[in-house]
Amino acid sequence: MKTKVAKKKPALSKAKADYQHLFDLSKHIHVLQGISSILSWDQETHMPQGGAEIRGLQLKTLAGLIHKERTSKAFGAALQKLIDLKTGKTPQKGLTTSQNAALREWRRDYIHDTAIPQKFVEEFAQLTSQSLLVWRHAKNENAFDLFAPYLERIVDMCRRKADYLGYNDHPYDALLNMYEPDMTTRQVSTLFSALLKGLKPLLKKIASSKQVDDRFLFGTWDTDKQIAFSHRLLAAMGYDMDKGRLDFSSHPFSSASHPTDSRITTRIHPTSLMSNISVILHEAGHALYEMGLPQDLYGSPLGESRSLGVHESQSRWWETRIGLTKPFWSYFLPFLKETFKGKLDGISLHDFYRAINKVEPSYIRVEADELTYPLHVILRFELEKALIEGSLSIHEVPEAWNAKMTEYLGITPSTNREGCLQDIHWSMGGIGYFPTYTLGNIFAAHLFEAFAGKHPDWETRIASGEYLFIKSWLHENIYQYGRHYSSHELLKKATGKPFSADAYTYYLKKKYTEIYTK
Amino acid sequence: MKTKVAKKKPALSKAKADYQHLFDLSKHIHVLQGISSILSWDQETHMPQGGAEIRGLQLKTLAGLIHKERTSKAFGAALQKLIDLKTGKTPQKGLTTSQNAALREWRRDYIHDTAIPQKFVEEFAQLTSQSLLVWRHAKNENAFDLFAPYLERIVDMCRRKADYLGYNDHPYDALLNMYEPDMTTRQVSTLFSALLKGLKPLLKKIASSKQVDDRFLFGTWDTDKQIAFSHRLLAAMGYDMDKGRLDFSSHPFSSASHPTDSRITTRIHPTSLMSNISVILHEAGHALYEMGLPQDLYGSPLGESRSLGVHESQSRWWETRIGLTKPFWSYFLPFLKETFKGKLDGISLHDFYRAINKVEPSYIRVEADELTYPLHVILRFELEKALIEGSLSIHEVPEAWNAKMTEYLGITPSTNREGCLQDIHWSMGGIGYFPTYTLGNIFAAHLFEAFAGKHPDWETRIASGEYLFIKSWLHENIYQYGRHYSSHELLKKATGKPFSADAYTYYLKKKYTEIYTK
Repeated sequence: MKTKVAKKKPALSKAKADYQHLFDLSKHIHVLQGISSILSWDQETHMPQGGAEIRGLQLKTLAGLIHKERTSKAFGAALQKLIDLKTGKTPQKGLTTSQNAALREWRRDYIHDTAIPQKFVEEFAQLTSQSLLVWRHAKNENAFDLFAPYLERIVDMCRRKADYLGYNDHPYDALLNMYEPDMTTRQVSTLFSALLKGLKPLLKKIASSKQVDDRFLFGTWDTDKQIAFSHRLLAAMGYDMDKGRLDFSSHPFSSASHPTDSRITTRIHPTSLMSNISVILHEAGHALYEMGLPQDLYGSPLGESRSLGVHESQSRWWETRIGLTKPFWSYFLPFLKETFKGKLDGISLHDFYRAINKVEPSYIRVEADELTYPLHVILRFELEKALIEGSLSIHEVPEAWNAKMTEYLGITPSTNREGCLQDIHWSMGGIGYFPTYTLGNIFAAHLFEAFAGKHPDWETRIASGEYLFIKSWLHENIYQYGRHYSSHELLKKATGKPFSADAYTYYLKKKYTEIYTK
Repeated sequence: MKTKVAKKKPALSKAKADYQHLFDLSKHIHVLQGISSILSWDQETHMPQGGAEIRGLQLKTLAGLIHKERTSKAFGAALQKLIDLKTGKTPQKGLTTSQNAALREWRRDYIHDTAIPQKFVEEFAQLTSQSLLVWRHAKNENAFDLFAPYLERIVDMCRRKADYLGYNDHPYDALLNMYEPDMTTRQVSTLFSALLKGLKPLLKKIASSKQVDDRFLFGTWDTDKQIAFSHRLLAAMGYDMDKGRLDFSSHPFSSASHPTDSRITTRIHPTSLMSNISVILHEAGHALYEMGLPQDLYGSPLGESRSLGVHESQSRWWETRIGLTKPFWSYFLPFLKETFKGKLDGISLHDFYRAINKVEPSYIRVEADELTYPLHVILRFELEKALIEGSLSIHEVPEAWNAKMTEYLGITPSTNREGCLQDIHWSMGGIGYFPTYTLGNIFAAHLFEAFAGKHPDWETRIASGEYLFIKSWLHENIYQYGRHYSSHELLKKATGKPFSADAYTYYLKKKYTEIYTK
């Protein structure tokens, strides 16, 4: 008996020591990634223009160091000791369920990172850096032909990338999984078809209804007052200014180098009241997720956000599910009126609520309203999938784009600049990314049902200025888990049921039918 | 003949290829150092408080990477190919004089970096990080006894450091050379003695003269207006806002990660007009030097600033030799009056000039005027030297400090907080640093004579608002050379004669005699 115990103990502590060693290697990589985040944040917010070139070299140097460490033999060997890289089996005993979950994610990342040859990575980086410039020029000139040969090469390399990464069913699976692990093209198609089916008749009904007047949201809105109001929103949400800050950039973003340093930026439009408000709620939704990740697990996958779709669910949650509701504005409209004294006199809560939820099909995705936004995403997903499987050729893109716009939104772009050249993503090689925008909304809607079930009085509470219980619920159900569970498991755990597009479609239908027919 | 040429050519290109390889290794290190600068800048200006711990880890990680690369066998081998690490001889032909100068500096750095064992570096870092905390506490409590054992260990480790680094004459040489290469303790002693001899009677004379009224410099000075005036100064100096920026921090500093990104900070005192003005001129003087370093040589010693003393000569040049002169204020006082409408009515140029140059012995170095400042530095140098050679023991420091204050400045601190506990440098292990403050003034005075010789009309020109010729002269004589020449050579080249404290003493005597006796 004694011998047995003596034998077992070292085995246990070996697993722990091996785990700690792997954790240390991984933490070093995360620290470098955090440094890179700060440099990127500075680049968009404060860096003097002239510093662009050296900043490029600094970021490239860091990217090189990070890639080297992530794919190093030392890292692979440390990982292989704890989890079989081929089978995913964990040979050592004595680790917790969480630690085994972390190993699963580390293995996933390592396989992903080492699947693509270094030469391919460099070639792809070179192509996309050229494509970005060409796309900018092509968009300015409204000349798809200029961009087409680059898009052709990008699609071709993305197909090769999919081959390197591997997939069971569809090459697009591999690309999608870079941003949304454990989600298949087939699943996304099913979700999006259901959504489309629900939205098309609703949009038709709205088009023939009495239109909403939102003119009072435009005009002149003092910048300082917009900023002051932003801080009021951030405070209500529980965004901790000791661990974050608000700056300005031409494209708003959130950037976290650690749960204790999670920053956001906004862009102030002096002629549009809601632009900055939406951005603040959206970016702070992202930032709260990062702030809520477990600090003691920083450096391991358990200290990282789950996926782009889950991240987007957090931003859209605050931007739409909270920020576009009547009880929210029942509390905040008086403060808004107080901030912009005299500017909103005579605007009722009802008027305001309808105005901020105005539906109007438009060409540009990033300016789309809540209801038409997913249609933009579905269109792009369908084109990407067709490009990758080869059922659509590059020169057919503009026409296919316009046909889908006409079919889904009832409007047809008159230029490619307003059509297939509008987004930056393809030029950056980000095929597979778009679906996560709408997955975020689907996840958020699914989660929101569980939240409302747990807090049936949520509307009364937010109408009276109580907001922190929202962050608590998200912390308990999302933030604290990092990458412990897959998205599917995470949502199932939070809600008790497998997710579908139903909650999202139901919510949109109910909300917009009410606005436009009552 | 043909064969000879064929033989020689590869020899030349080998040297060039070897040089390029070394340059590439070195540039990688400089990029990492630049990244570290940005993180430090962010830490002092924008970082949310809560991010301090992870920032510490980020900086430590970078410092580790930098040290590893600087002392790597690969770097040593690349260097050894081009310059003999033992003898300093350059065996390969075909390199330029500049390249050979760079090799000399690279060798110096490598020998320095590898002289100190890694274990010692870590031990010293640990000691000084503790000492810093203890010093802060001891200063607050006015309790030298708390700090004394730490100072004892720091002095002891600095002595050991000097042994590792090596020296010919005095162990303090090795410490001084960390900040000011090619300068000996004996030389500094000679310079400082001469200076002291000149200043003591001058101070005595001033003490018995009619005192200057500078009360109008205090009161309330609007922050936004102070900032607006700062930008006017920066524009005049030729500080390029496309390659720099102005922020706020509790201790002002300049921070360059590259000639195209050279930032400064200031601290606005709402009750003191001159505080921010001095800071702006001082820090921008540093920043202009960094902006003027040759960009194509970035990554090699030829793209680096010469030494701390030369750097300080650039900041003090603008702060004192330009910014405390009558012609400067003949141009800027009207703008100052315009900026602070009604606040300086009736103040003549003569009044203003006298006020900003008021001499008054005081306890705190960083608040000292131009004339008494060097006495604070001389005092510290003498104590440091005595501590390192062992002729002064730690417990004698407070008494020795006070005795020297009384002797040099005619005032005696009543507490150690105002005395030997005031500065942070010793707690950080920075013994050897202080002399560079006054060397900067000595260098600046020496250079200024040459500048005034070349531009005898400099006073007329700056009085009429012409300033860019100053930057041009500094560029031609200092900036462009990086570390090509030693400080001695650099000053000799610019001025045509070896430097001494004469120019500085002469300048101070002339200026302050005039102010206080005319």
